[in-house]
Amino acid sequence: MVQTTHPGNIGAAARAMKTMGLSQLVLVAPSHFPHAEATALASGAADILARARVVATLDEALADVALAVATSGRSRHLPWPHVDARTGAQRMLQESLRHPVALVFGREDRGLTNEELQSCHLHIGIPSDPDYGVLNVAAAVQVLAYELRMAWLQSQDQSAAGGRQMPLWQVPWDEELATHAEVEQFFRHFEQVLARVGFLSVQNPRPMLLRLRRMFLRIRPDRLEHNLLRGLLKDVEKALSKREEGA
Amino acid sequence: MVQTTHPGNIGAAARAMKTMGLSQLVLVAPSHFPHAEATALASGAADILARARVVATLDEALADVALAVATSGRSRHLPWPHVDARTGAQRMLQESLRHPVALVFGREDRGLTNEELQSCHLHIGIPSDPDYGVLNVAAAVQVLAYELRMAWLQSQDQSAAGGRQMPLWQVPWDEELATHAEVEQFFRHFEQVLARVGFLSVQNPRPMLLRLRRMFLRIRPDRLEHNLLRGLLKDVEKALSKREEGA
Repeated sequence: MVQTTHPGNIGAAARAMKTMGLSQLVLVAPSHFPHAEATALASGAADILARARVVATLDEALADVALAVATSGRSRHLPWPHVDARTGAQRMLQESLRHPVALVFGREDRGLTNEELQSCHLHIGIPSDPDYGVLNVAAAVQVLAYELRMAWLQSQDQSAAGGRQMPLWQVPWDEELATHAEVEQFFRHFEQVLARVGFLSVQNPRPMLLRLRRMFLRIRPDRLEHNLLRGLLKDVEKALSKREEGA
Repeated sequence: MVQTTHPGNIGAAARAMKTMGLSQLVLVAPSHFPHAEATALASGAADILARARVVATLDEALADVALAVATSGRSRHLPWPHVDARTGAQRMLQESLRHPVALVFGREDRGLTNEELQSCHLHIGIPSDPDYGVLNVAAAVQVLAYELRMAWLQSQDQSAAGGRQMPLWQVPWDEELATHAEVEQFFRHFEQVLARVGFLSVQNPRPMLLRLRRMFLRIRPDRLEHNLLRGLLKDVEKALSKREEGA
């Protein structure tokens, strides 16, 4: 981060990094650091602030780096290799397997100077609204750190993670899905109850039944849910019978 | 945003939204609003704060909404449909062509309550480091707003075809989805009938009710289907009353 003015932004950036598994923060001539506001906004990322390296110039910060990527919203007069956040993050991740890479963030009000931009290999931009595209610097750190993490996750072998997940709802599920036969049993039972409460006494009940079937097929009930539905139908039948006996 | 404590986070969230071309902010019972700190951190997004709607409950905020997506880092005991930020943003964008969609953000310290999470169709998470995954709420708004914009930009690249399709089921659909308010009315009516047929007379009906809620939220009923379900509940009530009169 180059010449950050508000220490709160340094803290918020550290927190953003930590949530995405990044840890190496270099501050180039910050206005105030260390600072209570930085610590407050870092929240659980105090360790990143404690280990942050403070240097005087961008050249010093980039000394060991083999790929320097500058964040830049504006296009400058001399076209420079430019990628969007997603593409850039993927490329940074790939290169990070070979050598140190760095992402460079500018000042809150003026970003990076032309000279600073021109000391980087690549410029990276976060696609934003043309009418108001000015992200807060810590928010920009959050988005790019997020894209780096997404790129890293995608590079991991996905096969290990997916096994226990319910593909439909993308979470591990505690129950097996009900089978076709079970669901058809439910439908037959459901129709009996529908007939008994007079729901099917309209002229042509088929279209309505079809819509109900479509609806309940969308549920994709698991075993426990299927049992709940069946239990509910039985309770309706029992309640109706009780009245009858009482009559 | 539900019960936001720090007004600065409201301002930062407004700015994050504006940079990504979003504009409709709803605040549920914020601790302090309007507030000078919110205005300061909103920077060029003061218009979004000025037009923000302040309501008392999440139900009020979601009344007209047909897809409610809750941000949630933690997994709860009962699995709920869950997507990551990228997948969820794509889905929200598609559905937004048909009906109002909402993204729900929780409190700074405790997120959303279980009840709030359970009034949403879908939970969405930002992949983060398992050791420290706690994003600041405005940072989370920035990431998700960014993913929504990326999804929108990608949809612009693709042809304009398919606009009338129901994105959920990949076919043209003949009915609009029922709104949050309508579905909540159904749930209230459903619970009355469940109580009347004795389905809720078990020791602890809550877990069962929760599973039923999750099931019916998965249906995503359209207006006609919603009317069918309501009509069915009325027929059950009528059938029970008739027996009573006969007695």
